[in-house]
Amino acid sequence: MGPIIYVAGALACTLTILASTDNCQGAQHDPLPSWNDCPTKTSITDFVQRVTTEGVAEYIPSADRIAVFDNDGTLWAEQPMYFQLAFAVDRVKALAPMHPEWKRKQPFKAVLEGDLKSVLAGGEPAILELLMATHAGNTTEEFAQIVENWLATAKHPTTGRQYTNMVYQPMLELLSYLRDNDFKTYIVSGGGIEFMRPWTERVYGIPPQQVIGSSIKTKFELRDGKPVLVRLPEINFIDDKAGKPVGINQHIGRRPIAAFGNSDGDLQMLQWTAAGEGPRFCLYVHHTDATREWAYDRESHIGKLDKGLNEAQKRGWTVVDMKKDWKVIYRFQR
Amino acid sequence: MGPIIYVAGALACTLTILASTDNCQGAQHDPLPSWNDCPTKTSITDFVQRVTTEGVAEYIPSADRIAVFDNDGTLWAEQPMYFQLAFAVDRVKALAPMHPEWKRKQPFKAVLEGDLKSVLAGGEPAILELLMATHAGNTTEEFAQIVENWLATAKHPTTGRQYTNMVYQPMLELLSYLRDNDFKTYIVSGGGIEFMRPWTERVYGIPPQQVIGSSIKTKFELRDGKPVLVRLPEINFIDDKAGKPVGINQHIGRRPIAAFGNSDGDLQMLQWTAAGEGPRFCLYVHHTDATREWAYDRESHIGKLDKGLNEAQKRGWTVVDMKKDWKVIYRFQR
Repeated sequence: MGPIIYVAGALACTLTILASTDNCQGAQHDPLPSWNDCPTKTSITDFVQRVTTEGVAEYIPSADRIAVFDNDGTLWAEQPMYFQLAFAVDRVKALAPMHPEWKRKQPFKAVLEGDLKSVLAGGEPAILELLMATHAGNTTEEFAQIVENWLATAKHPTTGRQYTNMVYQPMLELLSYLRDNDFKTYIVSGGGIEFMRPWTERVYGIPPQQVIGSSIKTKFELRDGKPVLVRLPEINFIDDKAGKPVGINQHIGRRPIAAFGNSDGDLQMLQWTAAGEGPRFCLYVHHTDATREWAYDRESHIGKLDKGLNEAQKRGWTVVDMKKDWKVIYRFQR
Repeated sequence: MGPIIYVAGALACTLTILASTDNCQGAQHDPLPSWNDCPTKTSITDFVQRVTTEGVAEYIPSADRIAVFDNDGTLWAEQPMYFQLAFAVDRVKALAPMHPEWKRKQPFKAVLEGDLKSVLAGGEPAILELLMATHAGNTTEEFAQIVENWLATAKHPTTGRQYTNMVYQPMLELLSYLRDNDFKTYIVSGGGIEFMRPWTERVYGIPPQQVIGSSIKTKFELRDGKPVLVRLPEINFIDDKAGKPVGINQHIGRRPIAAFGNSDGDLQMLQWTAAGEGPRFCLYVHHTDATREWAYDRESHIGKLDKGLNEAQKRGWTVVDMKKDWKVIYRFQR
């Protein structure tokens, strides 16, 4: 869509808001106050109402109300790089004194010299080497503490905010709204499962057992008689693209009835969800707001949304236009 | 323990029951009616009371009340062979017409000739070959249906009962009792995750997302445009011994506060649970009842309990003496 349609859309929404205030609808409790009163919002509330109203044909019992959410770019931001990569970069710097060889060895050399472009040019093998060097070798409990310590101090390079403040306020409301309607909310992310679990309950209200993500292998050991799980530098599972339905099946064993993503990496998760019998809801968050957040889709290296956008249009899935549909992006903008 | 002590123990329990009836304690609601009023039962109820009483030092919030249960030999029987192996045997027979070569090929030949001894003599590789030939090649939904169909018709070789009737009544009560006290109950079994999930909710009240088990790999595919997960003949994860804490961490991401098993395959799960801070509860079901069930432990090929029994004694874990502690084994014996 071009800018003219955006403006027209925004105007239409504003008029709707004015009209609904006139009708005293503002007096009702609005579970999604950061969402403009547009078809996007209505598509969500209509779906929830349909599946939670006992006696109607489309009613779904609460045990089957499973909603899955991608994380990067869907629940929190993912620019100018995945936040977990920023964590890996900071870990390289913190661990460098113990690894003098990194000064001469790529991709570590480039990281230490602040040359992230060269790191990214190394592609997946370079990223993988960084992740293994920074995410393995400790116990699960030690790693959780390292993540928490980092989140408490690290700042996003452009907003200067803590990373956990860069979660989308409208999506927080959506998570609560679904849970209030007896949905179970899960994260299904390409990000590391143990990178997310230490903070998802505090930030999103999603407990560790409802977080699915990529993982490295762990090994049970007795250390001085004390059992620990040691994190090994070996990939266990990549929870992305065709891996997402696999991860969902492995962890939940039930097909979700609602799925929320923002990139082609989420397409198979949405397809898997949509293919179930009965009412289903699929939604893409489209990053359209270059002013308040970032604008990117078909050509982006991070969070590329191309095939997914086509399929959403073809199948009539809901597409959130962040610029038009969201009153605020982050809580700190309120 | 020898038989004399058993008799003495049973007598002591009987006297306790009579005494407690005299004291009108029988008038109170007993959440564990199939458990004799012995120290075993009291150790469970004492623990639950301690961790659920607000204001006391040992109180544990409900979010952390995770209880993990082995399945084979802990929640249902496992003799004369794991029930899943009986399923594999029946599947070989059902699939044999499509595999004429099986008449000449081991371990299938032995299965078709009813010579299970030869199959078992083939050890792990033979069992693995059987499992792959009978558990893979279909979609996850097809496999769930195959399991359900089998359970609806198959009968246990010695009791003649359906396999899902061979669950332990005292353990069903324990599961309900823990859930009534805001515990989340999980299965953590060496058995196949997709072999258990179709029926655990109906039989144990444990939903699919709370079932952890061994698994084969699955692959997302579009078949005529319809997304399916195809089961591949390749091991994904063995949820046994040192794999159990790994599986718990992967699926739950929290350390359990209570663990229930019956064999050395559960030892690491109990160790991992016991090593957490604060009150913990570990229990072994000891198969001591050759009349009503089976009696086996240190020398058994199935459900061997040797190191675990030593460690339970050393650490003061609760050991259920099935003969002495359980009024009934199966519901149909009531």
